[in-house]
Amino acid sequence: MSKGLPTRSENYSEWYNEIVKRADLAENSAVRGCMVIKPYGYAIWEKMQRALDDMFKATGHVNAYFPLFVPKSFLEKEEEHAEGFAKECAVVTHYRLKADPNGGLMVDPDAKLEEELIVRPTSETVIWNTYKNWIQSWRDLPLLINQWANVVRWEMRTRLFLRTTEFLWQEGHTAHATKEEAEEETARMIGVYADFAENWMAVPVIQGSKSSSERFAGAEDTLCIEALMQDGKALQAGTSHFLGQNFAKSFDVKFVNKENQLEYAWATSWGVSTRLMGALIMAHSDDKGLVLPPKLAPIQVVIVPIHKTPEDLATISGSVNPIVDELRSLGISVKYDDSDNQRSGWKFAEYELKGVPVRLAVGMRDLENGTVEVARRDTLSKESAPIDGISTFIHRLLDEIQANIYKKALDFREANTHLVDTWDEFTTQIEQGGFISAHWDGTPETEEKIKEATKATIRCIPRGGVEEEGKCVFSGAPSYRRVIFARAY
Amino acid sequence: MSKGLPTRSENYSEWYNEIVKRADLAENSAVRGCMVIKPYGYAIWEKMQRALDDMFKATGHVNAYFPLFVPKSFLEKEEEHAEGFAKECAVVTHYRLKADPNGGLMVDPDAKLEEELIVRPTSETVIWNTYKNWIQSWRDLPLLINQWANVVRWEMRTRLFLRTTEFLWQEGHTAHATKEEAEEETARMIGVYADFAENWMAVPVIQGSKSSSERFAGAEDTLCIEALMQDGKALQAGTSHFLGQNFAKSFDVKFVNKENQLEYAWATSWGVSTRLMGALIMAHSDDKGLVLPPKLAPIQVVIVPIHKTPEDLATISGSVNPIVDELRSLGISVKYDDSDNQRSGWKFAEYELKGVPVRLAVGMRDLENGTVEVARRDTLSKESAPIDGISTFIHRLLDEIQANIYKKALDFREANTHLVDTWDEFTTQIEQGGFISAHWDGTPETEEKIKEATKATIRCIPRGGVEEEGKCVFSGAPSYRRVIFARAY
Repeated sequence: MSKGLPTRSENYSEWYNEIVKRADLAENSAVRGCMVIKPYGYAIWEKMQRALDDMFKATGHVNAYFPLFVPKSFLEKEEEHAEGFAKECAVVTHYRLKADPNGGLMVDPDAKLEEELIVRPTSETVIWNTYKNWIQSWRDLPLLINQWANVVRWEMRTRLFLRTTEFLWQEGHTAHATKEEAEEETARMIGVYADFAENWMAVPVIQGSKSSSERFAGAEDTLCIEALMQDGKALQAGTSHFLGQNFAKSFDVKFVNKENQLEYAWATSWGVSTRLMGALIMAHSDDKGLVLPPKLAPIQVVIVPIHKTPEDLATISGSVNPIVDELRSLGISVKYDDSDNQRSGWKFAEYELKGVPVRLAVGMRDLENGTVEVARRDTLSKESAPIDGISTFIHRLLDEIQANIYKKALDFREANTHLVDTWDEFTTQIEQGGFISAHWDGTPETEEKIKEATKATIRCIPRGGVEEEGKCVFSGAPSYRRVIFARAY
Repeated sequence: MSKGLPTRSENYSEWYNEIVKRADLAENSAVRGCMVIKPYGYAIWEKMQRALDDMFKATGHVNAYFPLFVPKSFLEKEEEHAEGFAKECAVVTHYRLKADPNGGLMVDPDAKLEEELIVRPTSETVIWNTYKNWIQSWRDLPLLINQWANVVRWEMRTRLFLRTTEFLWQEGHTAHATKEEAEEETARMIGVYADFAENWMAVPVIQGSKSSSERFAGAEDTLCIEALMQDGKALQAGTSHFLGQNFAKSFDVKFVNKENQLEYAWATSWGVSTRLMGALIMAHSDDKGLVLPPKLAPIQVVIVPIHKTPEDLATISGSVNPIVDELRSLGISVKYDDSDNQRSGWKFAEYELKGVPVRLAVGMRDLENGTVEVARRDTLSKESAPIDGISTFIHRLLDEIQANIYKKALDFREANTHLVDTWDEFTTQIEQGGFISAHWDGTPETEEKIKEATKATIRCIPRGGVEEEGKCVFSGAPSYRRVIFARAY
C-alpha cells in the first residue's frame, strides 16, 4: 500500500495529499472546494470533538444552536467584520426551483428573497442579535455558549482540511459584564486550546497575540496557538478573540450593571475547526503514512494473526480473544483483523498507513514461547513481549507513545526555532523554514514589507515573552520584544 | 412562573408554544423560519444524539460528513426526488458581496455561480454521487454510513421544532449488494427508531409503511413510526426508506457481484430530526410545563434547601453535599440549587416548568427527622423518604418514572385508538382526534377524497397487521387489512 507514497523530502505537498487520500481521511467532493470527510477521518474528528466538548463543559460552557443563515443587513452592522468576510460569502438569493421548460429545473424568478441570506462564515452577528434579548441585567451574565456547526467561506484555492469552502468547527460566543472578565475568558480559552493541542494532539504550540493586521475582523485582540509543521511552515491551530464592546454596540446589547447603569456587554469568540485534522496529519506522519497519537486514534491496537492453516488460526484466535477482552476492559480500542482476504504483509502496511499506534502480531511460534510481537507505529520498532501481563504492558506503551510523539514534535520545533538579529540572517533562514524569533518595530508598514520580501508573517507576539531591548530586524528601529515569524499555511 | 401558562384544554397550540419558550428550549430567530435552539433545549437534543449514535454504532454504522451544497444538476437526476424537493430549496447563486455605492453591501454580479447550489434538503444525491467512486465490488458492500447535519427545506408556515426551515437531523445512507439486505436494513432502522422512541423518549409508536402518496420522493417503500400527541393528532417521528436501485441508476453506481456480473447497488436512507423534540414535549408535558423522561433529562434530580438563616443553609448543605456525590457516583445528574436570589416556591415552579423528574426539598425539620421530601414531576406527588439509602431510592424512582411516563402515554394512545367501520363514525370520530383503525380500498383516489373531506391522512399501514376481510370505510370496496388514519402534524 505504501508503495508509491511520495516521501516528505521529495514532495511534501503531494505526500500530504496522498496520506489524506490513502488513509481514507477525506476527499474532494463534486462541489468545488467542499470536502467529504470519510468515516476513518470522521472518527478522528469525533474523538477531537468529544475531548474539546468535555473541556468546554468543564470550564462552564453549554452548547446551543443558531441559524445557518445570516441576513445581509446583519453582516453590514459591524464594519470591519463586514469588510473581512464580504468577499467570501455564499449568498442565497432564491427559495424555490421550478420546472425548466427546456427540461430539468431552474431557479424560480418569482421566489426571490427580499433580503439576501449569507451562509454563515462565522456567527457573531446572528448570535449577538439573539443575545440582545437574553441580556438585560448583570445577573444574566456571563453567557458562556458554544456551538458545533458547519460554516462556509468561499475559497479560491482549497486543500483538504487546511482550507476548504465548507468546514466543520466549534465557535464559542461569550458575553460578560466587565472588560476584565472578557479578557480572562479570551485567555482561558486559548489555554484550553493549547492544552488540547499538546495533551491530545501531541502538537506543541506557541500561544500569543496576533499583530493588528492579522486580527479577526471585528476583534480588539486575537490570541492564537501556532504549531510548526514538518516542512518548517507554521499553522494557526486555534484562535480566541477579545471583541471588546464592538458587537454589543452594533447590535445594541446593553445591560444594567451592579451600579444600576446601562452598559454595553463585553464579548469574546473562539474557535477551532477541521483544520486541526491537517495539523495532526502534518505534525506527526512519516513516509509510511499517518502517525496518530493514541488518544485520538480510532483504533489504538490492531492484532494480526500469522498463520498457515485454518486450524492454526483457530488456535491463535483462542489466545487472542481474551487479550482483546482485557484490552477493551481497560478502555483501549482494539481491532482483531482475522480477515482472510489479505496477507499479513499487506495488513501491516495498511495499518501503518492508517497510523494505528500499536500492532500485535501473533503466530504459532509466539504462542509456543508465550509471547507476541509488539510493533510501535511512532518508532517503527518491534519487540517481543510476554502474553502474560500484555494488557498492562500495552496500556503503559500507549502512554509512552503519546508522550514520545509529543516529545518528537517538540524537539523538532526547538531545533527549528531560530533567534535571528540581522536581515541577512532572516532572509537566509526563512528559506530553511522554521520559526524565527526576531525583533520588530511594531508597525504594520514594516510587517507588510517583511511579508512582501519573504512571504513570512508574524505568527504571534508570544504570551509571557520577556522584554528585551533590541532593534527591528528589518528597519533597525528600537524594539522591546521578539515576535515569531514564519511562512504559514 | 407557571402563572399564565395556557392550559392544554384552553389552547393546545399556545400551550405548546409557551412551554417551548418558557422552559428555554428554543425561540424563533430573526431569520424567517429558522430557530435558535437554546442551551436547555440543546442539552436534551445532545442526550438524544448520544443515545441514537450509540444505537447506530451498535448496529454497525459509522459516521461521515458530506457537503452542505447540492449542485442543481444532481437534484435533477432522480425525477421524483427532484419534483419532491424543488419547491422548498434555498438556492445559492453568488459567492461574493461587495461594497454598495449607496452604502452597505450588495451581491457582486460578477460573482455569479455557473451552476446554482442548493442548500441540502437531504443528501441522497450528493452521497450517491460519492458512493459511485467507493463501490466497485460486492466486497465494498454494505456501506453503512450516517451523518449528523443541518438541512434546509423552505417552509411557509413554521413551528418551533415541528416544522422549521433549517433543522438538525441525522441521515443514514446505506448501500447493499442485494434487495433483501437493503430491505432488512430498512426494517432494522425503523426498529431502532421505535426502540429509541419507546425506551428513551417514553413515546409509544406504531410502526408501518406509508401509502404510496405519502412516500419519500424517490423511495420504493417508506417505513415510519407514528406517535399520538395529547391533542389527538398524530406525529411522524422517524422514517426509513427502501430506495431500491433508483439512486444507483441515477448516479450510475454499479458493482461486480459474486457472480461476476455488473449490477446496480441497493439503497436505504433513514432519518430523525429535531422534530423529535416537539414529539417529546407534546407527548408528556402538562399544564405546569415540561415533563421529561429521566433518560433524556439534562437535570434528573434537583435539590432545593428550605432555610431561614445562613446557618441553617450551612447545616442543610452539610447533609446535602454527600447525597449529591452519591447520586453522581450512580451516574445521576443532580443540581443543588442553593442560590439565594429566589424563594423556594419560585424554584419549585421553575423546575416543574423545566420538567426535572425528581425534586428533593430539605429543611431543618427534615434533617431532624432524617428524611427529605421527594416530589415526582410525572405525578406531581410528594412523599417523605429517609436520607439513609436515599440514592438507591432515587435510582429506582427514576426507573419507575421512566416506565410510568411511557405507560401513561401508552394508556392514552390505547384510549384514543378507535376501530371504525362506517363513514359516519369516521367523520364523527376524526373530530375527537386519535388514531382511527379502518379499512381502506388501497387506492390513492379514495385516500385523497378522505383527506379532502376530513383532513385525515393515512399515517401508516401497520407492520405485522393481521389480514381481515372488510369494506373500505369510504368507498365500500373490499379491503383485506386496516390502516391507521389521523389528522397529523
